[in-house]
Amino acid sequence: MQVETEAIQHLRCAAHAAREASRVLAATGTDRRDAGLRIMATSLRDHRQQILAANSADLAAYSGTNAFRDRLTLNEARVEAMAQGLEDVAALPDPLGRILEEWTRPNGLRIQRIATPIGVIGMIYESRPNVGADASALCLKSGNAVILRGGSDSLNSARAINTALVQGLEAAGLPRACIQVPPNADRAYVAAMLAGAGLLDLIIPRGGKSLVERVQREARVPVLAHAEGLCHTYVHAAADPEMARRVVANAKMRRPGVCGATETLLIDRAIAAAQLPGIVGDLRMLGCDFRADAAARSVVPDLPAANDTDFDTEWLDAMLSVAVVDGVDSALAHIARHGSSHTDAIITEDASVAEHFLAHIDGAVALWNASTQFCDGGEFGFGAEIGIATGRIHARGPVGLEQLTTYRYLIRGTGQVRA
Amino acid sequence: MQVETEAIQHLRCAAHAAREASRVLAATGTDRRDAGLRIMATSLRDHRQQILAANSADLAAYSGTNAFRDRLTLNEARVEAMAQGLEDVAALPDPLGRILEEWTRPNGLRIQRIATPIGVIGMIYESRPNVGADASALCLKSGNAVILRGGSDSLNSARAINTALVQGLEAAGLPRACIQVPPNADRAYVAAMLAGAGLLDLIIPRGGKSLVERVQREARVPVLAHAEGLCHTYVHAAADPEMARRVVANAKMRRPGVCGATETLLIDRAIAAAQLPGIVGDLRMLGCDFRADAAARSVVPDLPAANDTDFDTEWLDAMLSVAVVDGVDSALAHIARHGSSHTDAIITEDASVAEHFLAHIDGAVALWNASTQFCDGGEFGFGAEIGIATGRIHARGPVGLEQLTTYRYLIRGTGQVRA
Repeated sequence: MQVETEAIQHLRCAAHAAREASRVLAATGTDRRDAGLRIMATSLRDHRQQILAANSADLAAYSGTNAFRDRLTLNEARVEAMAQGLEDVAALPDPLGRILEEWTRPNGLRIQRIATPIGVIGMIYESRPNVGADASALCLKSGNAVILRGGSDSLNSARAINTALVQGLEAAGLPRACIQVPPNADRAYVAAMLAGAGLLDLIIPRGGKSLVERVQREARVPVLAHAEGLCHTYVHAAADPEMARRVVANAKMRRPGVCGATETLLIDRAIAAAQLPGIVGDLRMLGCDFRADAAARSVVPDLPAANDTDFDTEWLDAMLSVAVVDGVDSALAHIARHGSSHTDAIITEDASVAEHFLAHIDGAVALWNASTQFCDGGEFGFGAEIGIATGRIHARGPVGLEQLTTYRYLIRGTGQVRA
Repeated sequence: MQVETEAIQHLRCAAHAAREASRVLAATGTDRRDAGLRIMATSLRDHRQQILAANSADLAAYSGTNAFRDRLTLNEARVEAMAQGLEDVAALPDPLGRILEEWTRPNGLRIQRIATPIGVIGMIYESRPNVGADASALCLKSGNAVILRGGSDSLNSARAINTALVQGLEAAGLPRACIQVPPNADRAYVAAMLAGAGLLDLIIPRGGKSLVERVQREARVPVLAHAEGLCHTYVHAAADPEMARRVVANAKMRRPGVCGATETLLIDRAIAAAQLPGIVGDLRMLGCDFRADAAARSVVPDLPAANDTDFDTEWLDAMLSVAVVDGVDSALAHIARHGSSHTDAIITEDASVAEHFLAHIDGAVALWNASTQFCDGGEFGFGAEIGIATGRIHARGPVGLEQLTTYRYLIRGTGQVRA
């Protein structure tokens, strides 16, 4: 008989308490959950000094890069932003109880499909401590209990934030087990969560590629994760040239490091000579570099040559792969071969070509005459998002409150039995 | 460097071809897919002799139980039923392209969420050869390519059915890679499918508990599966006594072996003495046996005593656990502790108690005054189902065509860039 590790034992207790709490939450009205979020926001503000002191302890022990140190750092403004985030989520519409469909069967049974919480969610994230507060808010609003395992670098901050949130929960009369953190930085806790089939209903990893890949590789629990965002913008022969320059510049360089940033520009051969120099010139002014195929280099000779793997590379940086294609089907074939089914755009004034592109693309988000950087929960109007999902089931694209729900059926009869 | 097994190499080729095929299918109109299904039905009928000959070879090599032999056996009527099944699916509404939601953002972006195929589905099933034809029909209709790994006992039958279906596909001008079977009975193929992250988008196991548990334990791919169906019927104090007898008898004994069969009867203390003897008497007439708690036995003394694990047992047989409870919250607590979040029913004439029950239950299906055996895709009006899902994400309850789709976003703009 295998002896359970301390981490598994703790997770089992935590998950059972979370399951009980999730059942209470699922039957709670939106007023109660929203009041809870607002009281939690107040509690965060009231615990500002304790949170900043805990964060100082994390920072004192931290020896990594300056970029990560900045992400780990809290200050009064960042605590206030977390509190404000809780209040913003409270103000969003209730995702629970929505009647998704309803119909009556010939035998008189009335069937409703309604939105309901998923249950117990495990969240595994890296150093930014505010992720814990944001995720807590979204999970509570959507009726889910959550177990939050932040990075070991931010353990003190995460615990101080959790203490504040739980005091708010209790003041609102909600179960404290709705939002939990591990008791220590034991790395075995992550393994226990990944193995936790039956204990957790869903794991959401948020962090770098190696974290996400580990979770996807090892989890025995369904995972909602963001893997790769190799996004394309295709400038079709009938594009408005001025719009193409403006949209491509934004799609690549507004924030080159976000998942919806365009990584590859496809441009039709018929207009490459006329329009590629202008597009390249704009991007160069913004600091972008290039990897281009031979046809693109024949038009703009000083573009560096692309190698075989460049079109499969998610740069997440001021770098753009460029390829010349022969019409919309050639562009679609390139995207099918090299893309990651995330977000792709076409720029054209030809509506029938645009609709052909939208109909044949495989990714979570397809845009016509707009920047790929619109792939974002806020821009979709979701109010808040917990991340972007690149899997193909349950949820695709931005994951907001609605994507943190599932459904169940209510059937009302008058004594029907099955023949 | 790890050498790939032959099974993994074959799966990789098959899955890549399936991916290409799925992209063709996704952009195919419903007329084309429906015509394909009808031509496939004709092809099945035309290949009747070859299918029955292949099935005879499987039967000749088979040495298992008679019950399984019956499930493995095909005859003219069963082939005709498969063909009819394909035509029935062709007649169902198209699950693709439905606009699930649409809205316009303040910046003018028009966002649509539309139903789209999942992609490439792996189906792992046991001896009943018709499962392959049924799953092929549902996957094709919903725009998904499918790789079907049947039981090794039915390999010849599965291959003969597949040959007929693929000839139909090709005659309809659809890619043959839409529906594939492994080249041989190599057991490593199942392991390759379970490991096939990135190759398959979803695995659906259909078969006994050990198959489903293995798939859930080992799969590195999302799984839509049926685990356990520990269903309850709760007879509330305000139940119509005649209705309670009729519904409980049906919920338990119509077909005791189906997943929606009631395994535990809960009855209110206030009415146990008056109503339990009648309910028990009806069930005894139908051949049902019992495991009852002390309070139930005080009312019907000859009921056998339940032990601690009986209320956690999915009998799937002519056996019913019986417990006395004290009102709706006591019933809900019993279900939360012992249930499997599948299907549970309340029998009562009190609407407010019924609504309390429906609001607080956790399972995929909750019924008021109806038999738990209604948990079935056909009874829901889905026309056809590939199984029942007991997980909590993507799909719960009966899995029909709609549950074999996912969604993506189409965004139409006029040159918007993100600020």
